[in-house]
Amino acid sequence: MIILSVNSGSSSLKFQLFTMPQEETLVLGQIEKIGLKDSIVTVKYNGKKDVDIVDVNDHKQAVTILLETLTRIGVLKDIEDIKGVGHRVVHGGEVFDHSVVIDDAVVQKIDELSSLAPLHNPVNLVGIEAFRNVLPHATHVAVFDTAFHQSMKPENYMYPIPYQYYENYKIRRYGFHGTSHFYVSRKVCELMQRDPENTNIITLHLGNGASITAIENGKSIMTSMGFTPLAGIMMGTRSGDIDPAIMTFIVDHEDKTSDEVLDVLNKESGMLGVSGLSSDARDIISKYEEGNPRAVLTLDIYANRVAETVGSYFVKLGHVDALVFTGGIGENSSFIRERVLKNIQEAMGLELNWDINASTIGEIAKFSNDASKSEVWVIPTNEELVLARDTFEKI
Amino acid sequence: MIILSVNSGSSSLKFQLFTMPQEETLVLGQIEKIGLKDSIVTVKYNGKKDVDIVDVNDHKQAVTILLETLTRIGVLKDIEDIKGVGHRVVHGGEVFDHSVVIDDAVVQKIDELSSLAPLHNPVNLVGIEAFRNVLPHATHVAVFDTAFHQSMKPENYMYPIPYQYYENYKIRRYGFHGTSHFYVSRKVCELMQRDPENTNIITLHLGNGASITAIENGKSIMTSMGFTPLAGIMMGTRSGDIDPAIMTFIVDHEDKTSDEVLDVLNKESGMLGVSGLSSDARDIISKYEEGNPRAVLTLDIYANRVAETVGSYFVKLGHVDALVFTGGIGENSSFIRERVLKNIQEAMGLELNWDINASTIGEIAKFSNDASKSEVWVIPTNEELVLARDTFEKI
Repeated sequence: MIILSVNSGSSSLKFQLFTMPQEETLVLGQIEKIGLKDSIVTVKYNGKKDVDIVDVNDHKQAVTILLETLTRIGVLKDIEDIKGVGHRVVHGGEVFDHSVVIDDAVVQKIDELSSLAPLHNPVNLVGIEAFRNVLPHATHVAVFDTAFHQSMKPENYMYPIPYQYYENYKIRRYGFHGTSHFYVSRKVCELMQRDPENTNIITLHLGNGASITAIENGKSIMTSMGFTPLAGIMMGTRSGDIDPAIMTFIVDHEDKTSDEVLDVLNKESGMLGVSGLSSDARDIISKYEEGNPRAVLTLDIYANRVAETVGSYFVKLGHVDALVFTGGIGENSSFIRERVLKNIQEAMGLELNWDINASTIGEIAKFSNDASKSEVWVIPTNEELVLARDTFEKI
Repeated sequence: MIILSVNSGSSSLKFQLFTMPQEETLVLGQIEKIGLKDSIVTVKYNGKKDVDIVDVNDHKQAVTILLETLTRIGVLKDIEDIKGVGHRVVHGGEVFDHSVVIDDAVVQKIDELSSLAPLHNPVNLVGIEAFRNVLPHATHVAVFDTAFHQSMKPENYMYPIPYQYYENYKIRRYGFHGTSHFYVSRKVCELMQRDPENTNIITLHLGNGASITAIENGKSIMTSMGFTPLAGIMMGTRSGDIDPAIMTFIVDHEDKTSDEVLDVLNKESGMLGVSGLSSDARDIISKYEEGNPRAVLTLDIYANRVAETVGSYFVKLGHVDALVFTGGIGENSSFIRERVLKNIQEAMGLELNWDINASTIGEIAKFSNDASKSEVWVIPTNEELVLARDTFEKI
């Protein structure tokens, strides 16, 4: 059975086509710069990569072009062969703690949650509506970034602020990247031949956005992103947690509005803000190697903040069976993995094989030794596969 | 030699008179509600406690009344017998990393740092000037709440925000309660007969304001308060760290200014905000015992947040020789100590004697067993004594 996984961003549409239950990828790709001139359509299949530049005015047109492309290149005979479409939806609030078949009521609920994710849920819905129009007979499934973290208990998700902010606006920790944390936490159990329900794991999804999750016996009990994806550890352009008084200090001293300062914390902070160089860890590492002091400071702060969060989850879990690195940085940067692990290894009793770490780029590897109190793994994430699996399951 | 320690608040003046180097307290007390009607003058000496209600218009008058009281009750023959006055000053910025004799240049620097502590440094200076006028021949010494934490490294004190905010406004982590963290960290070394320079300690100052410090070989390497005393763990009325986007969300949804929301986070949050009952841990514990669900939630969140911070400092230090509880809650609440320690004991390998914990109220006690990886202590803080010692040393 053919299942399509899609992720609609504000100006992009990423997709991957699977045959299920074999979990084989037929084609994957993305349409970028939707609504701008010279949109870029990229498809990878059979070891080939096609790139087209065309004008794509909106997501509706993007969906049409995508489906035409899939039949034109021959991976699909007929678009009706697509029996299910899995849609990534950022915010499921407290309403959705698992994936659901999309109907009008679900669409309405996702829309109602837009106040919690004004940049994401509306564009996710644009994608959902476009695909539902063109593929009305397929089963459409919404897979929520927040759902995996709905198992958190109130003492972990409530903030120490007046209770009525929870009652009135549902301000609480939600957490994001749930699909990724879920995927790698299950995958590591498979690799360790352990039952997830009897395993404690800390998953580090380190990419341009980044979050860390404590998983106890298969369930997310705490995660570093919060009410929004700004919270937690330092990221490419986001500050993560800071003294909240800093925001007001900048509002008062720079004649900026609170929204403008929030923009600074989301888009000009993190690695970019400290280094003044780039939001991309690779650029900063190469400047670090040249001895650039701001690049050194950036990576020192980063490794520190990641280690602090891992430490706080270590005490929360009591014992940790596995640490898993994933995401663009977690999968590919042996340098950052090493920096983080050197900060935590004594307290956590880790025994590591640095040679295996150094040679691991974007592939599954275990680089802890047998004497290590926790196993340490790199596992490339695969959110698209979770979307396909959850969709296949509902058909 | 007679030394006076003073702490000037916006409407209060706390004091303690010592003979040094014997470190004996002759008298202690406070003047409250300065500038309001019916100010309260409390003095404790020779096992007695006197309370007077008088009108005290300003700090200058408060100082005069204080010194008259000291001679009237006979603990001083002549106010000229006071050879030194130690003044608590909240913010020493990056300028002061130790206590200093106050001269006009120091006064000016403390004044210049007022932008970082607008609620504290100006009132501290009012007290300093009042005492300098009346006791011009005494040595006046400023003891800074921030000084002990000046040993933090940039990777711990810099925030992941644009670097120019540090350059332009000196926005960074400073930390507070330094005198208290310093005092109990040295005291525990004395009790353990260990050299501070070879000892790792986590100090938990838990009071209405609260902070936790990681001390490596005698030096503060990290502390939970930040740019301001709002940051870090949950407190009586302060939120501690939260997703910074929450502030903007409330600004946008409640038609409040950023300053008003900051006020909510400082004065209506923490234990008060979650419980809706009180900012006083004792009230909340008594409601907890009655099964009040919001009191239960409040203490669950509190124990959690304290444990997370201890965990993050544990990995930072690698190994911890001692944990020290101090401050109003830390010294007196065996209940909260137990809740915090139950959250961390497995990961940290703590072995505890809960009976000793339960019977310890406001006194020095060790309640870890010999098999514990870290010793766990209660040590009442004594910031006034540090003020007196630092002042005595400068004369």
